[in-house]
Amino acid sequence: MDVAAAVRRIPGFDALAERVLADLLALGRVAAPPSGTVLFTRGERPADLHILLSGQVALLTGSGTAETVVEVVHPVDHFMLPTVLLDEPYLTSARALADSVVLYLPALALRRLIASQPALALPMLASLSRHYRLLLRQVRGLKLHSLPQRLGAYLLGLHQEQGGGPHVRLPFDKRILAARLGASPEHLSRALAALQPYGVRNRGRDIALDDIAALALFSDADADVGPSTPLSFSRQESPP
Amino acid sequence: MDVAAAVRRIPGFDALAERVLADLLALGRVAAPPSGTVLFTRGERPADLHILLSGQVALLTGSGTAETVVEVVHPVDHFMLPTVLLDEPYLTSARALADSVVLYLPALALRRLIASQPALALPMLASLSRHYRLLLRQVRGLKLHSLPQRLGAYLLGLHQEQGGGPHVRLPFDKRILAARLGASPEHLSRALAALQPYGVRNRGRDIALDDIAALALFSDADADVGPSTPLSFSRQESPP
Repeated sequence: MDVAAAVRRIPGFDALAERVLADLLALGRVAAPPSGTVLFTRGERPADLHILLSGQVALLTGSGTAETVVEVVHPVDHFMLPTVLLDEPYLTSARALADSVVLYLPALALRRLIASQPALALPMLASLSRHYRLLLRQVRGLKLHSLPQRLGAYLLGLHQEQGGGPHVRLPFDKRILAARLGASPEHLSRALAALQPYGVRNRGRDIALDDIAALALFSDADADVGPSTPLSFSRQESPP
Repeated sequence: MDVAAAVRRIPGFDALAERVLADLLALGRVAAPPSGTVLFTRGERPADLHILLSGQVALLTGSGTAETVVEVVHPVDHFMLPTVLLDEPYLTSARALADSVVLYLPALALRRLIASQPALALPMLASLSRHYRLLLRQVRGLKLHSLPQRLGAYLLGLHQEQGGGPHVRLPFDKRILAARLGASPEHLSRALAALQPYGVRNRGRDIALDDIAALALFSDADADVGPSTPLSFSRQESPP
């Protein structure tokens, strides 16, 4: 795997200078945690920044039946960067949902590299800004919208991400989706049924969306979203 | 008001180099929006980064009875930095809850300054990391905890922030508190009543906390928090 090329696929990291990227990668090691591996546990101090190169990782909190998914990470992306930068205890645990490939960047060495090469802070700032906005949309959805509306918005996000076809494929099983939306599996089933009048037909992990316009109107579109890829601010407007 | 000294009070900004801070402040203008002023509206493109120097600002979304408070900003802090950095539409509106003093930094000039002086990105990265973690705690609380638990955790956060006395004073009225916790005013009243067995006595904007240990046990302490002030990563570990 071309790790340098993969890291450049992180939104915001595309414009990273060759030399800075080389310094960053020189810190790291790549490993392949199998599905089910716990990468870190809530309350631990961060030893590494994790960059998911392939596979899927859930950020979890709580335990047993009260376990919930804060976010599902898709490649290529870093996760829990704020915890690593501030050197504070993790607020979530992380568990591989699929066989994954992860780049580990030692936390202390990374903080030192950023302090000595602030150019590295620019893509991180852009990228963290994007993470912040995704989380803000979640907060807004959780406070303002019903579960069917949040589910509808989530499906519309997948629809856009997966090319706009007549159905979407859930990137993980329904138990994880329920937790990601802050609901029990039972409530998720009821929410899926509640979306039938808006053209949503449940086919296991494939979900048909027969009436995008009606679903968008019902869901308020912004109630929740999956990953998106805004532009990097550092590239758009570098000074002349 | 000593604006430079105020800006240094933003967590993460304390270690900002004199020269960089001077360049930053040279961009800005200070204004005093009275209580009720709308600073920006959801959907607008950002014209300025706002730094609250004194007063109080609510970040709002929705409208009418469905209006909700994503966060309440206390001085000194910037807000919606990610929107300004990415030059995307605001996800929330902002309204002064009290007569306030605000530093306006023009968005385009700020992005150019950061690109040309990446040292400025370090405190922003630390500060945004802190905002991210606060939002993550909100998401976790909203997904995992009941309203009384979130209220209890919020009161405990105030308790710590206000010096640990036998009662806390709400920094805003109960309607705003309800929205901040993602609840209606009626549900907030019921949640306050539900906390009576844990020593919580409602006295308008003053709330007596008679049994901190019991409240902490019930609330899981981490269910939600107000502002906190972690260390700056850039200061802790600058290379020798």
